[in-house]
Amino acid sequence: MTNVSMTVDELQDCVEAIFGEAGLSAVQASAVARVIAAAERDACKSHGIYRIEGALRTIKAGKVLPEAVPQLAQSETPAVVKVDAQGGFANPAFEMGLPGLAERARSFGVGALVINNAVHFSALWAEVEGVAAEGLAGLAMCPSYATVAPTGGNKPLLGTNPFAFGWPREGAPPYVFDFATSVTARGEIELHRRAGKRLPEGWALDADGHSTTDPEAALAGAMLPFGGHKGSAISTLIELLAGIMIGDLTSREALDALGGTTTLFPAHGELIIAMSPAAFAGGRPGNPLSRAELLFEAIVGQGARLPSQRRFLARARSVQDGISLSPGEAEQLKRFRALGLDAI
Amino acid sequence: MTNVSMTVDELQDCVEAIFGEAGLSAVQASAVARVIAAAERDACKSHGIYRIEGALRTIKAGKVLPEAVPQLAQSETPAVVKVDAQGGFANPAFEMGLPGLAERARSFGVGALVINNAVHFSALWAEVEGVAAEGLAGLAMCPSYATVAPTGGNKPLLGTNPFAFGWPREGAPPYVFDFATSVTARGEIELHRRAGKRLPEGWALDADGHSTTDPEAALAGAMLPFGGHKGSAISTLIELLAGIMIGDLTSREALDALGGTTTLFPAHGELIIAMSPAAFAGGRPGNPLSRAELLFEAIVGQGARLPSQRRFLARARSVQDGISLSPGEAEQLKRFRALGLDAI
Repeated sequence: MTNVSMTVDELQDCVEAIFGEAGLSAVQASAVARVIAAAERDACKSHGIYRIEGALRTIKAGKVLPEAVPQLAQSETPAVVKVDAQGGFANPAFEMGLPGLAERARSFGVGALVINNAVHFSALWAEVEGVAAEGLAGLAMCPSYATVAPTGGNKPLLGTNPFAFGWPREGAPPYVFDFATSVTARGEIELHRRAGKRLPEGWALDADGHSTTDPEAALAGAMLPFGGHKGSAISTLIELLAGIMIGDLTSREALDALGGTTTLFPAHGELIIAMSPAAFAGGRPGNPLSRAELLFEAIVGQGARLPSQRRFLARARSVQDGISLSPGEAEQLKRFRALGLDAI
Repeated sequence: MTNVSMTVDELQDCVEAIFGEAGLSAVQASAVARVIAAAERDACKSHGIYRIEGALRTIKAGKVLPEAVPQLAQSETPAVVKVDAQGGFANPAFEMGLPGLAERARSFGVGALVINNAVHFSALWAEVEGVAAEGLAGLAMCPSYATVAPTGGNKPLLGTNPFAFGWPREGAPPYVFDFATSVTARGEIELHRRAGKRLPEGWALDADGHSTTDPEAALAGAMLPFGGHKGSAISTLIELLAGIMIGDLTSREALDALGGTTTLFPAHGELIIAMSPAAFAGGRPGNPLSRAELLFEAIVGQGARLPSQRRFLARARSVQDGISLSPGEAEQLKRFRALGLDAI
């Protein structure tokens, strides 16, 4: 059997149809399909069609409301846009909030978008890219569900808490990073387990809080933050700002609501901060976008990579040549489309 | 000889007098003395009276304007306060901008303070503590001068770029972290050199861009960011937001302006973002400050430390018992006070 090639649009339509079959309303299905197709386009397999099954499980378990209609919520402070995802996926809530966020950042210099009551499973780079496409710098962060011990601790309390940033570039994809504040993704530990491989030192603790290189023990224990106490502090910042400050769940609470570390996606909130380089730099010498290019040239010129560089190369290839799916992947898409929630 | 004990206020007056003798105007001398006395009070020796000599050198070299009067600058965007330090130290500019920042964060939900044209040498924790004392969450960041290579690169381009965060607590010192985004401080490498000790692996590169454990070679080469490519990305974010976006110098430019990695303090800008937990959480269940306490209890309850915990313990001791200075330190203060800039 040979690989199947699809255009990005074809894959998006196919994924949207799968979610429609599974009972998602059009606004939910199309927003979710967009981020899954975008991840596949960027060869970001961990957030591509691999995620469909988890989304279907989450729908089937009743942990996401398939016909939720996100609503702009009352915000008493003019620079903050709030969207209540109403128990649906975070993606349509983000799409609803982005124009208001961009407008606030342009008018006030800095603005924030809060998403509440959302089920979250996609990469944050899609969102900071959306902010950057508006000519703005963007920071995005959210809790997850508790699988990470704070540095010096011994029990899961923090999530893998992703932290993402985007900076707009003219004539080039934005400068974007998006990473877990845990030393690795939980999926990586699972892959080690399946392959019968030991973990590197410093990734995880066992259930008694002792350092372990056994993936099975790690899955029953806790992962560790990246960068020691510094990463632990950033992960805690994310719990505070993108959990507690926005009146939504912490990773600990999200885990409790989920009822254990299952394959379901957690519900919680998200915080996106946008800033206008044009507004901040106003009255100061130099164009910020041009000056940033000099910094990027200096990074690349000494042999270092810009984050997301590989992803943007894959994107260019996919747009030109289509997305290549393995026979197994194509078969799975067909099965999901035919059977909907009965496929899992 | 025995140690000399001083109250925090006495030390502050003494340091202020030293800087007055060295030609700083009252507004400069008092703000600088406040942060140096605060660091000494907190047993944060790296930012205490140890820094006086560097400040005096910087004044003597003409790299800071001793009588600068910070000015509120025109800002076209209502949520952003801009203070031009006019070539003076960053500290009086921060003090001037803080009330406006707090007012913006309360009215708009989120606000920013930009400091431009400042000479920077103090720890950022003093500033996020100031923001937290207003009942606000605060993020502070600034470039430095280029001594750090981006991950995958081989030449100094980034600074040690500190990143700090504060969260207000009722009846307790705030949750505060403040760390360099380099794996270590440059001073640590210098201490290894003086002690004739090798550096741990992963701290630095030599002038040819090869990994080194020789402190001498590291000082001639580049330090590395903390946490691999993730720390490198955060350090780059700081160059973009707190250098380029605010129309001020990058670490590379700050080094050029300084004319080499000397013992002088660099000039550049700084960005502080403040958010109102009360405003963000408005209309949502739960009091954010009370919920944060549960998170802190869960961290401490599993044996992990809150960042700054040791500093706050030292503070409590200093406020009660005074600050104890070694005979050498006391002698140095006396000499600085008598001789002013002639002491160095």
